[in-house]
Parts: sequence; structure tokens; C-alpha cells
Amino acid sequence: MTGIVKYRDCGKTPCLGYTAPVRILLILCHPQPGSFNHAVADRARQTLAAAGHQVLFHDLYQEGFDPVLTGPEFRRGVSFDEQVVRHTRELESCGGLVFVHPEWWGQPPALLKGWVDRVLRPGVAYEPADKELPEQAPAPLLGDKAALVLATRDAGARSGLLEKVWLEGVFAFCGIRSADCQVLHDLRRLGPAEREAWLDHVSRVLLGLFPPVQGPGAVAASRLAR
Amino acid sequence: MTGIVKYRDCGKTPCLGYTAPVRILLILCHPQPGSFNHAVADRARQTLAAAGHQVLFHDLYQEGFDPVLTGPEFRRGVSFDEQVVRHTRELESCGGLVFVHPEWWGQPPALLKGWVDRVLRPGVAYEPADKELPEQAPAPLLGDKAALVLATRDAGARSGLLEKVWLEGVFAFCGIRSADCQVLHDLRRLGPAEREAWLDHVSRVLLGLFPPVQGPGAVAASRLAR
Repeated sequence: MTGIVKYRDCGKTPCLGYTAPVRILLILCHPQPGSFNHAVADRARQTLAAAGHQVLFHDLYQEGFDPVLTGPEFRRGVSFDEQVVRHTRELESCGGLVFVHPEWWGQPPALLKGWVDRVLRPGVAYEPADKELPEQAPAPLLGDKAALVLATRDAGARSGLLEKVWLEGVFAFCGIRSADCQVLHDLRRLGPAEREAWLDHVSRVLLGLFPPVQGPGAVAASRLAR
Repeated sequence: MTGIVKYRDCGKTPCLGYTAPVRILLILCHPQPGSFNHAVADRARQTLAAAGHQVLFHDLYQEGFDPVLTGPEFRRGVSFDEQVVRHTRELESCGGLVFVHPEWWGQPPALLKGWVDRVLRPGVAYEPADKELPEQAPAPLLGDKAALVLATRDAGARSGLLEKVWLEGVFAFCGIRSADCQVLHDLRRLGPAEREAWLDHVSRVLLGLFPPVQGPGAVAASRLAR
């Protein structure tokens, strides 16, 4: 990770200036193979790979990821579950996170919420509480990463709840400041052209957050993208 | 259910005037047996039973409830899973809902979110979308129920996010207007006396929403509470 991500402060809209390929963890959570969410994830993979980045892809439903944080994990603050350890390692090695999911009840599906519960643990996403100074808020540990949520919503009305859940509830606590949550509303009523336009929008947003590799990084990029 | 719940409109703070025992579905979700959340659920059971109500209790961790909405459930809008069918039946028969859980990432644990995903389905919590009038918002189906969330939060700062998640994200969509979300903040730093005071507060809130059975209902209440 060291040296891969270089922040460039440009005011309200966070953006990043990359000089080398970024390793990006792409998490898809939708129960129906062939869904529009799958198309969004496919587009994300293609866009990021073509830009010279390295994508680590997980389809949580297909993997059968277990979303239930266990009693021992809760007590110890650590998991020895093979899947969880693998996801944690990949999280630590990556510079970017992309989540693709439908909005259910203003929140991600339980399966994706369980990924958050089990992977973003003390010592991974934030420092464990200081026993001598318990009144201090735990220090965030993921400040070197950028994150993007690409969600779909059946209903048309904008509630803004999902954005709060990710940006305030999850990313802010981990120190992820370069974050965005894009929700495609009214999915049920959209025609093929409107869906295709959203996929193009997805590519643009991804390239805004993870610009194509240029300059000396290009060689490394082509190696990663192969 | 019919005739059990009688609404009494009293302005901003929702309250209910019951003339007969209420059947209440009490859902506990915490990974650690003996936790303070377990004490809250115990207190809720005792308080409601002593008030003459009937409590249907579920400890989701102990039951091994599966929180993952499956592909077939997603497509069909209905589940034939034994656990889900049982919870759905109990939901339909009850006049009140009480959830006890820790706040993780401004949200309920994944296991409880999965209960919401799998039990509050079209035809149960809201009418399925009208195929001839897809622009209409689905009609809510749980307007005859009251709901209370009793949550604990490790951190001290109030974000208000969990309240929004339950009240705006879940209950409003199902038509549950008589709803409340009570969060005990800074659980880590509280001593035994402060925790005991919270349990007393829990009893008071419960009895405010589900007043003790009086008058002709008392006989039925004693039968239910036995």
C-alpha cells in the first residue's frame, strides 16, 4: 500500500491524484445472478481494470459469506474465520473500496452489513479502545483509503438515509474521507437506455475517484490489468 | 388481533390505549449470552408479562436465525423457510414489536437486519407493487402495530442515525406510526447503578407504550401472563 495513494486536497468534493495503480476491493451483494447490480459490478471491474488498477472482486452471495459476527469474535475483537481473515488481509492491502448493492430499508442487505460487522473490526478499521483512557474516541485506521458505494433503489423518493448510513455511520468512523455514495433511484421504472446511461455514469464516477494510471506507473498498471 | 389494539391520538408523542392484553413480539439480537442487552430483554419480558400482556420471545443468536434473504425469496417475494414463516405468522398475530440490540455502525447487527429483510416482505409489511400502477408507493400493512427499539451504544456521542434507520427506514414504510427508539449511550463507561437506572427507564417506556391491562381485560391478562 505505501506510496500508492497520494491525496490532493481540492475542497468539498474529495479527489485523489494517483501516480501508480491502486488495488481496489470490489464487493457485490445481490441475491439474483444476472441482476442490474451484477451489471454495475461488471462495469466497475472493466472500468477499473482498463484504467490500470488492480481489482479484487467478491460476490458475497456466490461466496456464501457468513454475515453473523459470532460470540467469540465479539469478545475477542478478532476473527480466525478463513473467509473473514482473507477479506481483512485484502482490505488492509487495498487503497480503494467499492460496494455494489440494492438499498433495502434504507440500508445495505444484511449480508453486506455482516461484512461490515465482521471485517471492520477493532485493530482493522479503528484502534481498540484505550483501557487507560476509555473516554477517548478510538482512532480511525482506514484514512489512507477511498470508498465508493454504488446502490440501486426501487422507490423513486430520495430519503438520503443510505448515504448517511455509509458516509456517517461507517466511513467517517474508519477515517475514510474520500468517499461517495451514488444511488440509482426508481430502478423498477427505468428502461434499457436509462440503465445504460447509469452504467456510463458509474464509469465516470469511478474514474473521478480512481483516475487512470499515467506516467511512470503505466508499466505497473499494464502488468496489474493483464 | 382484531379489537386488541385501540389507538388514542394524543399529539406528537404516540400513545395507545389498550383495553385488552396485547400480544408482543420481543426480538433480542446480541452475540454474547449474559450481556446487558440480555438483561434489557429480561426486564422487557418481566415488565410486559406483569402488565398482563403476552410476550412471544425470540433470541435470534440462540435460535440460529439465518439472516440471508435468498435468491428465490427475492424473486418470489415470499419465503417457505420454516423459521421465516413462523416469525411472519407471529408478526401478523401481534399488536406490538420490541427490538433489543446493540448499535453497530449506526445500524442493527446484520443478524437483526436479516430478520427485517426476510420477515418484512411484500404482502406482509407492505402491499406488493401494483403492476398496473407501478408509480404508486406500496401501501403499508403494519399500521395496527406499535414498535419500540431498545438499543445500546458503546460510544457517547449522539448521532441520531440509528433512530432514523428504524423510524424512517423501517417503521414509516410499514405504516407503524406508534414507534419509539431508545438508545442507551456510552454503555462501556456506565456503572451498575446507571445500568440499573436504565432498566427502570426501559420498564417505564414499555408501560407508556403498552399500558397495564385494566378492567374487563384483566381476566384475560392473568390467563396470558401465567
